[in-house]
Amino acid sequence: MKIKNVCILGAGTLGTRVALQSALSGYQVRIYDIFPTALEKSKKTMEKIIGQLAKNTGLEEAAGFNAINSIIFTDSPANAVKDADIINESVLEDIKVKNEVWSLFGQIAPEKTIFTTNTSFLLPSMFAEISGRPEKFCALHFHDVFFAKGVDIMPHAGTDPGLIPILEDFGRSLEQVPVIIKKENHGYLFNSILGAILSSAGRLLANDVAEVEAIDKSYMVNFRVDIGPFGMMDTIGLDTVWHVTKNQNDPISQNFAKLLKNYVDAGKLGEKTGEGFYSYPKPRYKAPDFLG
Amino acid sequence: MKIKNVCILGAGTLGTRVALQSALSGYQVRIYDIFPTALEKSKKTMEKIIGQLAKNTGLEEAAGFNAINSIIFTDSPANAVKDADIINESVLEDIKVKNEVWSLFGQIAPEKTIFTTNTSFLLPSMFAEISGRPEKFCALHFHDVFFAKGVDIMPHAGTDPGLIPILEDFGRSLEQVPVIIKKENHGYLFNSILGAILSSAGRLLANDVAEVEAIDKSYMVNFRVDIGPFGMMDTIGLDTVWHVTKNQNDPISQNFAKLLKNYVDAGKLGEKTGEGFYSYPKPRYKAPDFLG
Ligand SMILES: NC(=O)c1ccc[n+]([C@@H]2O[C@H](COP(=O)([O-])OP(=O)(O)OC[C@H]3O[C@@H](n4cnc5c(N)ncnc54)[C@H](O)[C@@H]3O)[C@@H](O)[C@H]2O)c1
Ligand SMILES: NC(=O)c1ccc[n+]([C@@H]2O[C@H](COP(=O)([O-])OP(=O)(O)OC[C@H]3O[C@@H](n4cnc5c(N)ncnc54)[C@H](O)[C@@H]3O)[C@@H](O)[C@H]2O)c1
Repeated sequence: MKIKNVCILGAGTLGTRVALQSALSGYQVRIYDIFPTALEKSKKTMEKIIGQLAKNTGLEEAAGFNAINSIIFTDSPANAVKDADIINESVLEDIKVKNEVWSLFGQIAPEKTIFTTNTSFLLPSMFAEISGRPEKFCALHFHDVFFAKGVDIMPHAGTDPGLIPILEDFGRSLEQVPVIIKKENHGYLFNSILGAILSSAGRLLANDVAEVEAIDKSYMVNFRVDIGPFGMMDTIGLDTVWHVTKNQNDPISQNFAKLLKNYVDAGKLGEKTGEGFYSYPKPRYKAPDFLG
Repeated sequence: MKIKNVCILGAGTLGTRVALQSALSGYQVRIYDIFPTALEKSKKTMEKIIGQLAKNTGLEEAAGFNAINSIIFTDSPANAVKDADIINESVLEDIKVKNEVWSLFGQIAPEKTIFTTNTSFLLPSMFAEISGRPEKFCALHFHDVFFAKGVDIMPHAGTDPGLIPILEDFGRSLEQVPVIIKKENHGYLFNSILGAILSSAGRLLANDVAEVEAIDKSYMVNFRVDIGPFGMMDTIGLDTVWHVTKNQNDPISQNFAKLLKNYVDAGKLGEKTGEGFYSYPKPRYKAPDFLG
């Protein structure tokens, strides 16, 4: 089957980016949100992204604005899903909201429509049945589309295997690297590995083996990258890292969770609050002399 | 105290590199090995490295050869340690050999000499006493000196804290990034984090969540780096990875250890045997279309 019409559900951070990249790649795109204000904001965000892409990549601004103008922004479910070959859902990460949305679109979508979800921490099997077409249901999980260009393809046990190559091709056509996961795994592949990195760094700190900066330096200089585990935690948000860490049962991780809780209680959540393991907007790890 | 004279014990892979970088940085260097053939080979390796540095960095070849010519290569312990301000030991990673060496040099080194070891997996406290000057004994652990430019400074409980800033300055003078570890930890900082990465990747594979290439792709595209966990394992050697993994007690890691054992039994140890998770010299992960 050939995908031409793309329907994006949810016009937030991620839906906006997937919709824009789909339009830039030549698809006819409709983007839906329950809140008209979200749709207005989404369009403004797209304009900002085009401005950045024009500056940082070779993109012609005019082509970018044409792409935006080709997108249909709508708060009408029926209009959104009209003639859709694929739905990529990016509504709120809330099991109740996602269930509502998939129950509704399962009823009104054309028979041909493939159903995909961007859920980060839930699993496709949680919505496959309520959508009414479990065999056409699969996770298609983007990262941030323009910077980290991976797309995870994760079927549940009832997904038709014939769907996988179609989604692979679709992902490639959006200039993403398809990553195929063979069976359901919470957080796909990357979150498992990222979690292991953050937790081992946290354990070194909680065990008083080294300071935050020494651990980040060791990581950055050996992997030759420009951010280390504690810089990553500040970017993710220390509230989120705390939520994950407090569910780890070993005593050292529990100590790290306590340490994180102190930051959270003090309102130090990382980059978004200006203070975490580092101080923003100019964290030490970005200073030119940090590795020196 | 000002370091001028550097004594390197062991003229193998690492000793050769530390000696060369010390000479390039203006120190008077003596390098010792028990085998005269090792010393000859060491000098040849230095010449090769200078050739590469001249090609890849701005280094003038003449300055490089001057540095090599300034180095004293010797199989005489007394000559090696003459007037040494610091010893950096890189002999075989064997507790008996290191004990012999430190017992000998502890007796003949000048009183001022600082004692440092490059051990990768042992701990400085294992040789501090036999050296006769535990308070002057510390790990000073280089990575590969010219590519990964970190140097770990790891004291044992009896190390004089005044030693740390001296070793930091010495590390910086060799253009390395000093990483201070507050107390002894097997494998310093980086090995803990690297181990966590490899083990979580191995568990994804052993659990049949995804294939080798998918896991590496996910890592590479999200971290924007050119090697993933299985590429790293092939570089390290699957025999080494197996030795570490088989000591991890959870059932999934045990399954990964079994999988590794099959490679080891088949003589597939990674890059060094031409075959591991990938085939060499042109592993798939280095192909231009791997992330595509
Ligand atoms: N932000 C990211 O970087 C990212 C990356 C990968 C995956 N995801 C996943 O994408 C999904 C969306 O995340 P986000 O960060 O874009 O969230 P967001 O909060 O920015 O956007 C969610 C959007 O859903 C809309 N919405 C809420 N209820 C709705 C309903 N009943 N019907 C239609 N729209 C509704 C909201 O108005 C909002 O615009 C989540 O499942 C998240 O896990 C996000
Ligand atoms: N190779 C690396 O990348 C690396 C990195 C960090 C740390 N290290 C550590 O550095 C040390 C050396 O590793 P390597 O890879 O250079 O090993 P290597 O086998 O290349 O070199 C060891 C040298 O020690 C010499 N030697 C053996 N017995 C001796 C003795 N009694 N007295 C003097 N010399 C003796 C050998 O002749 C050989 O030249 C180890 O402790 C290792 O863990 C190595």
